[in-house]
Amino acid sequence: MAKGITKRSDDYSQWYIDVVLKAEMAEYSPVKGCMVIRPTGYGIWEKIQQRLDRMFKETGHVNAYFPMFIPESFLKKEAEHVEGFAPECAMVTHGGGKLLEEPLAIRPTSETIIWSTYKGWINSYRDLPILINQWCNVCRWEMRTRLFLRTTEFLWQEGHTAHATCEEAEEEALKMVHVYERFAEDYLAMPVLVGRKTESEKFAGAHHTYCIEAMMQDGKALQAGTSHHLGQNFAKAFDVKFQDRDMELKYVWASSWGVSTRLIGGMIMNHSDDNGLVIPPRLAPVPIVFVPIWRSEEEMALVLGKAREITADWDPLFFKIDDRDQYKPGYKFNEWELKGIPVRIELGPRDVASNSVVVVRRDTGEKVTMPAEGLRENLEKMLEDIQTSLFKAAKQRMTDRTYTVDSYDEYKARVEGGGFYRVFLDVDNPEVEKQLKEDTRSTVRCIPFDAPEEEGPCMITGKLCKHRVIAAQAY
Amino acid sequence: MAKGITKRSDDYSQWYIDVVLKAEMAEYSPVKGCMVIRPTGYGIWEKIQQRLDRMFKETGHVNAYFPMFIPESFLKKEAEHVEGFAPECAMVTHGGGKLLEEPLAIRPTSETIIWSTYKGWINSYRDLPILINQWCNVCRWEMRTRLFLRTTEFLWQEGHTAHATCEEAEEEALKMVHVYERFAEDYLAMPVLVGRKTESEKFAGAHHTYCIEAMMQDGKALQAGTSHHLGQNFAKAFDVKFQDRDMELKYVWASSWGVSTRLIGGMIMNHSDDNGLVIPPRLAPVPIVFVPIWRSEEEMALVLGKAREITADWDPLFFKIDDRDQYKPGYKFNEWELKGIPVRIELGPRDVASNSVVVVRRDTGEKVTMPAEGLRENLEKMLEDIQTSLFKAAKQRMTDRTYTVDSYDEYKARVEGGGFYRVFLDVDNPEVEKQLKEDTRSTVRCIPFDAPEEEGPCMITGKLCKHRVIAAQAY
Repeated sequence: MAKGITKRSDDYSQWYIDVVLKAEMAEYSPVKGCMVIRPTGYGIWEKIQQRLDRMFKETGHVNAYFPMFIPESFLKKEAEHVEGFAPECAMVTHGGGKLLEEPLAIRPTSETIIWSTYKGWINSYRDLPILINQWCNVCRWEMRTRLFLRTTEFLWQEGHTAHATCEEAEEEALKMVHVYERFAEDYLAMPVLVGRKTESEKFAGAHHTYCIEAMMQDGKALQAGTSHHLGQNFAKAFDVKFQDRDMELKYVWASSWGVSTRLIGGMIMNHSDDNGLVIPPRLAPVPIVFVPIWRSEEEMALVLGKAREITADWDPLFFKIDDRDQYKPGYKFNEWELKGIPVRIELGPRDVASNSVVVVRRDTGEKVTMPAEGLRENLEKMLEDIQTSLFKAAKQRMTDRTYTVDSYDEYKARVEGGGFYRVFLDVDNPEVEKQLKEDTRSTVRCIPFDAPEEEGPCMITGKLCKHRVIAAQAY
Repeated sequence: MAKGITKRSDDYSQWYIDVVLKAEMAEYSPVKGCMVIRPTGYGIWEKIQQRLDRMFKETGHVNAYFPMFIPESFLKKEAEHVEGFAPECAMVTHGGGKLLEEPLAIRPTSETIIWSTYKGWINSYRDLPILINQWCNVCRWEMRTRLFLRTTEFLWQEGHTAHATCEEAEEEALKMVHVYERFAEDYLAMPVLVGRKTESEKFAGAHHTYCIEAMMQDGKALQAGTSHHLGQNFAKAFDVKFQDRDMELKYVWASSWGVSTRLIGGMIMNHSDDNGLVIPPRLAPVPIVFVPIWRSEEEMALVLGKAREITADWDPLFFKIDDRDQYKPGYKFNEWELKGIPVRIELGPRDVASNSVVVVRRDTGEKVTMPAEGLRENLEKMLEDIQTSLFKAAKQRMTDRTYTVDSYDEYKARVEGGGFYRVFLDVDNPEVEKQLKEDTRSTVRCIPFDAPEEEGPCMITGKLCKHRVIAAQAY
């Protein structure tokens, strides 16, 4: 509607692209499928990194860095892994003007290079566990890309842990999917389903995969984070053994887990509206913007002086004062609305006279007058309220649009319209999921951890199942 | 000597590698010339990032992210740039199983991809300046590599700024080399010379290059950071113009500046010793380690309890308690010495009885007893003292080993032995520097900003020069 943004109700996909571009979050680069993350978007990635990194460290992890290049032969060492990733790799064949003896893949994920390194680090049970995370870029050659949601190069973190027992690896994989759940809900204000992927949908090379799945405003699912119990697959592929307390040589157990810049896409699709971006306050690099209003140099000195007086002892990361002289207030209101700043403060000469300010919430558009006295505390409360409201609204939407369906005909008729579908489906049989995908372009998103025990016939084959799974169309 | 580390006096190069490997800072990877940065090393990189990032933001910069892939044709748009970098590029020729229409270089530096993007962002003087920084990996295919100092892939930051005038670009380039100077001296405790590179040594595509140059313990120079005034070269190559206040279309002016994981190598070579790493306290992820000493479970409970009591209200990033039961205290002392933790605290049952601890400085090895009362404040003072002492010692070394030499014969005889040489050299003539390099494997490191005006004959050609430059062998 305003500012050249397509309405969500007209074309949700176009709306998303419009918001990303107009809010200057990201843009496509001259290199096919790659994106430029602009300062507005990168500022949010920095907040995501800070918060998540703290959570990783609080759970005992440390960061490290492994090479971006993976010898082709390494990828081939784990059979499922190479099948899953080799077709998507970018390959370096020349370096320093010469043909390389062995082509190098740019990491699509780092299990292979990391486990080839862990071999040198692990000899004894004393060397375990290893709890390492890496922040880096990865590359998967994608045919159809969408800014943040699916790009050829993207930024992410990947945790890679090594354990003495199966139980510890399992505990780690579970712990981290719950860290992701907490992060998504507490910071992105994005409610998620937590569960296990089916055999068909799990990570290439994993024993099993846990995930968080979010619902976008159009009812489609977004896989927002995954955590894998890798069993001993990579330890066996790279021959990583340790001498246990009982003196026996055993293969090491592994987990890996990751989230990416895709989270930014999820944030946008959860909260933004026809006026542009809406950033949850806890992820806003600067949550408050002052827009002083003046018509003369005298007024300018007055309102800017007042804004500086009010904020004299505030944290500089809490607010900014938009003192640009080349733009009118109306232009600035529009710009900050479009860019999703949680709270805008208008401050004109009359406000100075009454020692108050006008406060505008980005999420509801609500305008209230607040006394200059005690403003910071009131804004902090408002920001918390915005954070909570955004989460509640998204949660309500997910609840409202989660349907229990038993007939495949009904499912086929409805799934295109969006929503999560609680269905009985025989996920032990990969053919069933294949058919589901072919018929409906939808997939099983997960087997939720909290799925109650209930028995019913698979909606495709009729085979008796023990619980419902969540099926949906997805990004 | 201890721990399998070669003595510096026996073989400085081998000592360096021993320290890096034994302190578990980094190791070579299976991919030629690439390194794995281990948690100990990466923790220092994180501190460097945090501190520098704050300095960048305080000087008005924001972060963004540009694709790692650069179309070959982009590199070719700036003549000097392609000549400088094309021979070192890693090239991606295949993606998703198919031959690419155009090979993609992995960024050796990002001027070209960034200026092709800035073209879309800059129309008017209102769009300037752009003050962007990027933290990322880069790749330069190197023949001879050395951990941290020169690796095929490395981590760095690169600032890329766009300005309306030559003066502003110049001011920015100067500002940032001084930011690097301050960072090197205040955090790395590494004194540096600040100056300008000669025409032969400047960045490929720059008008001129400023740099900081440090001296390692063997007297060799290390280029530790560079800041370039790029003039309008990249704006012209990518046709980036803006409409100025006077309504005229003009090319944009540019700067770029960067430091890399090489700084970690500089830090090691400045301060470490025959017992291993020495980390300046301000870059130590955790500056204090408690090693409690016990012989029985009872004693263990006693000393661990005391350590926890003393540190109850301390910042968890300030200290750690090494409560590992599988290692003896002597082993731990050795390990933390090797890993360069600035201060170690020994705490046994007798110390508990006297309500005191034994404090050991890593830099001097000095042992003192301190009362448990007021310990944190005393440790903070000690850490500051260590930081200052490290800087002073390095500064003294640099002063002592900076020589004024006038005869080329004397220079040739001495330069191999290390040190900075204040010499007259005709740096307007590239042939002179070429000969210097051939004769002595040394180079002009910089024309220091603070070089006094003095006149003298070029030590090679006899041509009259207006000031001395600094020549040295370098890493």
